[in-house]
This record gives sequence, structure tokens and C-alpha cells, in this order.
Amino acid sequence: MSGPGTRGRVTGPVVTGPVVTVTLNAALDVTYRVARLRAGTSHRVEEVLERAGGKGVNVAAVLHGSGVPVLATGLLAGEAGRRVRADLDARGVPHRFVDVPGETRRTLTVVEGAGGTGDATALNEPGPVVGPSDAARALDELAAVLRDARPAVVVVSGSLPPGLDEAVVARLLDVAAQLGAATVLDTGGRSLLRTLEGLHDAGAPGPDVVKPNRPELAELLAVARTGSSDEQGAEEATDESVAEGAGVALLRRLGARTVVVSSGGAGLTLHPVDGPPLTARLPQPLTGHPTGAGDAAVAALAAGLRAGAPWADVAADAVARSAAAVLRPVAGEVDPADVARLRGQVVLDGA
Amino acid sequence: MSGPGTRGRVTGPVVTGPVVTVTLNAALDVTYRVARLRAGTSHRVEEVLERAGGKGVNVAAVLHGSGVPVLATGLLAGEAGRRVRADLDARGVPHRFVDVPGETRRTLTVVEGAGGTGDATALNEPGPVVGPSDAARALDELAAVLRDARPAVVVVSGSLPPGLDEAVVARLLDVAAQLGAATVLDTGGRSLLRTLEGLHDAGAPGPDVVKPNRPELAELLAVARTGSSDEQGAEEATDESVAEGAGVALLRRLGARTVVVSSGGAGLTLHPVDGPPLTARLPQPLTGHPTGAGDAAVAALAAGLRAGAPWADVAADAVARSAAAVLRPVAGEVDPADVARLRGQVVLDGA
Repeated sequence: MSGPGTRGRVTGPVVTGPVVTVTLNAALDVTYRVARLRAGTSHRVEEVLERAGGKGVNVAAVLHGSGVPVLATGLLAGEAGRRVRADLDARGVPHRFVDVPGETRRTLTVVEGAGGTGDATALNEPGPVVGPSDAARALDELAAVLRDARPAVVVVSGSLPPGLDEAVVARLLDVAAQLGAATVLDTGGRSLLRTLEGLHDAGAPGPDVVKPNRPELAELLAVARTGSSDEQGAEEATDESVAEGAGVALLRRLGARTVVVSSGGAGLTLHPVDGPPLTARLPQPLTGHPTGAGDAAVAALAAGLRAGAPWADVAADAVARSAAAVLRPVAGEVDPADVARLRGQVVLDGA
Repeated sequence: MSGPGTRGRVTGPVVTGPVVTVTLNAALDVTYRVARLRAGTSHRVEEVLERAGGKGVNVAAVLHGSGVPVLATGLLAGEAGRRVRADLDARGVPHRFVDVPGETRRTLTVVEGAGGTGDATALNEPGPVVGPSDAARALDELAAVLRDARPAVVVVSGSLPPGLDEAVVARLLDVAAQLGAATVLDTGGRSLLRTLEGLHDAGAPGPDVVKPNRPELAELLAVARTGSSDEQGAEEATDESVAEGAGVALLRRLGARTVVVSSGGAGLTLHPVDGPPLTARLPQPLTGHPTGAGDAAVAALAAGLRAGAPWADVAADAVARSAAAVLRPVAGEVDPADVARLRGQVVLDGA
């Protein structure tokens, strides 16, 4: 089994550039602690915590915590954007975001009880509305950030703020590919489909790795079948019976190379561009805080691409980091000791 | 039955000064609209609305909407404070707030469905922590704002941010009284008790009007009885059987003059300093949005004090404005047409 390498350079000099994460809809993650959440009543918030968030920001934070050179970029706006930057500074995560007008969204998580043991309730704002001229300028500035960074790997994660469409994502992935960087795309089913179509229409190469989870793969199949991702269609297709093979085949037809399908606590299946699929899982799923587990897996994929690690190692590392993230209460954190311990427990099939 | 007049001036020149509202823990009221709130799940926020809030701000907005000269003051902090000011500017409400470090609290209301017909879920942040030296400076600046405004009536409403205690409220009420203004105090049971004790200890006159609602009166009695306002004690005493007379007598002993006890949809009882109690109510309670109803009643009390209206008129006006506020989805708004219509339906007893 070959390793991933970076685009067009299966052998060659060691890549020293950073992993650059692009978070177009970054967030200020706000956590409210309340005694108990009861819909329809009033609550005194006992504690307010704020933290830089968004999927790509979490990926960057996990990589930084593992000693992988990283640069977090994307779009920020207003006072919430200023606080995202301040938090990244405090955590030592290198960043270079582009400003847009408005206000970066807040993603509110309400946790219950002193230990935060209850289920978390999430309320996610849509994000700032980015107008056409701001979008064009921001795209130019982001492309310049990528060029300056000389990235080994570029990761584009998460949703888009209102007003931006997937053409922006396709353009950034194309710029990254032209710079010789490996590319990872982690967006929802409909957005993934549109981005791949955009790359295809532009004659640009597909991403080196895409990482849908099972519900996203199901949504993608539903959208491809019906041309719409109405919720009912997506819910029907999230049935376990969804043919993972059909989804992977669709992604391949659209230009994706390696496809990683994550299944939450059940582990993941890595479908390499150059070989048979590999599954990696823990003997039993962990309980904890699943938010950020997918981002930790993406961090492992990016680190593996950068190091040119064998696919089996990449898959095992992704499961270990994802599980380690479940053990931490906030997204964007893993304990290296947890990763090392869990890594030894990962069961690989197909390697 | 006499009217309220202003302190020491039962007859005299018409008072032309404004009503000054003091909101020490002003808020940025944020409303999230979601399809349906389910604790323990994730939600896409469909709409985010922001508005200047806090009880005294709502009082000022209602008075401004009725053409009563008003000045909103209190404490604001940070970016949320800047947005409170911007919203007051947009609504034309005169204001002069004092800045403190930190960040004004957000009070989040989650409403469900397109019509917002479901019960609202409120999540109230505690507010910025005000340190001793900032508190002293802010108090001086607020006293200067009061002196400059030459107020006819000063209304102090709502909670205190962490770090401020009731001595600040007592001091501001004392300054207001020295300026010849009538004073209205609308705070929770425990805070009301402490403020009255602070005025008493300082040898300062008690407020002209205090407006506990029934649960606040019950909390106050529980605190006075046990020396603590633990929730269980307060809940026990919110029983309808609470002796309103005992609460009013306690408030009088502590220096309060006219006491208005509001009972939500059941109306209110006004215990004038100079006569027998009056009850005012609608034939049947209205359903709608009770948030801000108490503030609309306080606005009516302040307007009545300023105009020297007879107590019976003041009580009827308070019920009409409070009910009109229930008909509006946001606090700090009443439709004058609703007020006029409802005013004609108010049933008065004891007048």
C-alpha cells in the first residue's frame, strides 16, 4: 500500500510547509452553563466561556497542539472576529484571517450542571452576510495568504457564511493545487457536491482527500438523486443501509481522490485513491463530547498527507485523534497521551 | 384621594424635567429564532435580532413612545454596550450612559417557529464584573448625570452587575431625592430589602414608589424572616396565600412610601402613602408576551408621578400600559392605541 504523498510528488524532498486551514465561516464558540435547561423558562447563566471556533480553527488547534506547523486562515468580522483572533493568540495558534464587514457568527452551546454531564444544546448563528464585492476582495486576499504560506497541505472546512457560494471554495482549492499543496475538503453533503462540481467545471483537479461522515454521504446521495437536499430526503438516506460504495463512487466520478467516511464511534473507512479500502476503529466507542471529533480526524489526515505517511497509519491516527477529542470537553483539543494510548487499541481491517 | 405629586411639592409649578431611568445592569437583548428548541440537540438559528434591553431601558423606551421627556442612563461596557447605544439612537431614545470596563451582558431569548408562538426560553448572562474603583468612579459619574438632567422623576430598575452592591442604588436614590425628584425603585425582593436598609442606615428618605411583583414580595418576606433568600424559601412563599399586607407593612417600616404590588395578568394593587389601597385590573387577563409588562407599568407610575396625576388614574394607566406591553412581542414597546382602548376597560376598586 502506498502512502498519500503530496500532489505529483510521490517521492521527492521532504515537505516543510505548514498545513493551512481555511475556515470561511469561523465562529466565536460561546458556552453557557446553566443549572438545567428547560424550554419555555428563564435561566440565569452561571458561567460564560468564549473560544475561537469553526471546524478549520479546530483542525489548526489540534495540529498546533501536536507540533505540526500550521496557519489558520479564513474570514473574520467585527468584534466577535477580534475575540477569535485574541483567543488564537492566547493559545499560540498562528493565524492570518481576512476581514469582511459584519460580525462573525456565534455558536452557542448550553451545558447543564456543574460537571456539564448533560447533553449539550447547540444554537448556531448563520454568519455574516458577505456581499459580492467583499467576497471577491476576500477571495483575492485569501489566495494571497495561501501563496505567502507555501503550504504543504490546505484544508478547507465547514460551512459558508450567507452570500458566499461553493465557487469560492473551488477557487481556493485550485489555488492550493497550483501551489503544489495537497488538499483536504470537509464540508456538508450538498456543499461538497457543489464544490466538486465547481472544480470539475473549472477543469481544476479534485481534492486529494474528502471526509464526509455517514449522514453527509447520505445527504450527498439524496441531493444527487433528487437535485434537492430537503431534510426529509436527507433523513431517509441516513439509514445505516446507505450504500457507502455508491457514495464513494459518486465522489470519485466528481473528481475526489481519497475518500474518508467517518461513522462517529464506529470508526472510519478510508478509500485510498490508489488501493482497496481500509477500516479503522476502536474495539468499542468512547462516550464523551463528540463535538470536534471530526475535526481531530481531519487534523490527522492533514498531518498524514504532510508527512507522506502510509494510509494505514493515517487511518489509525485519525481514529485515535478523533477518539481523544471525544474525551475532551471542548473542540480543538486532544491530549497527546490519549492519542498515544488509543493509537495502540485501533483495529485495522484491509491493511 | 390625593395625587402623588413630587417630593415635598404637593402643589407648585408644573414639573418640566425628564424622567431619568437608571439601568445599572443594562443588556443587549438578543433573540434567536429556531424552528423548535429541543434540549440536547443542535439548532440552526434562523434569525438573530439585537435590541437595547434591561428593565430601565424598557421603561425609558415606553415613556419615549408616549411623548414623555426621558433620559436613559446607567452603566454600559464594551462592544455590547456600543450596540445598546446604537439601538437607542436608532429608536430616538435620549441616553447618557456611563462606561465601565468589560462587556455588557447579553440576555438571550430563544423563540420557536415563524410566528414565535411557543414559549420563549431566556438565558440571562450575569453582567460585567465591576471592580471597586470603577464602581466608585461610575457612581460619581452617574450622580453627575442626574444633576445635569434636573429630573422630575428618577427610576432605578433591575439587577446589579457582579461587584456592585445596593449601596450604589441607595446613593443614587439619595442624590435624586436631594435634587427634588420623585423616586421609583423596581428591583427584586432581596435587592429591594437591602436598598431600603441602605437608605435607612444613611438617614436618607425612602423611595416614593416601590413596585414589587407578588413573587418579589414573597422573596422579600422570606429574606426578612430567615435572613436568606434561598430558592426554596422564596418558592414556598410565592404561594398565593402570601399576606400582601405583611409585605407592604414591612416595606413601609423600611421607609418605602407608596407600594405597588403587581400580579401579572391579575392587575395590581396600589398602596398609596396617603390613603387606602386601590386595585386595578382588566376584566380578564390578556395572553401574549409578558416580558416587559412590569416595565410598562413602571413607566406609567413614573409618568403619573411626573404629571401629579391622581392615584386612581396612575393605577389604571399602569394596568393599561402593562396589558398593552403583553400584546407586543418585544419589551419596551406599547401601542398608544392599545393603551387607550385598554384604559377604558380597567376595573378599579377602592377609588
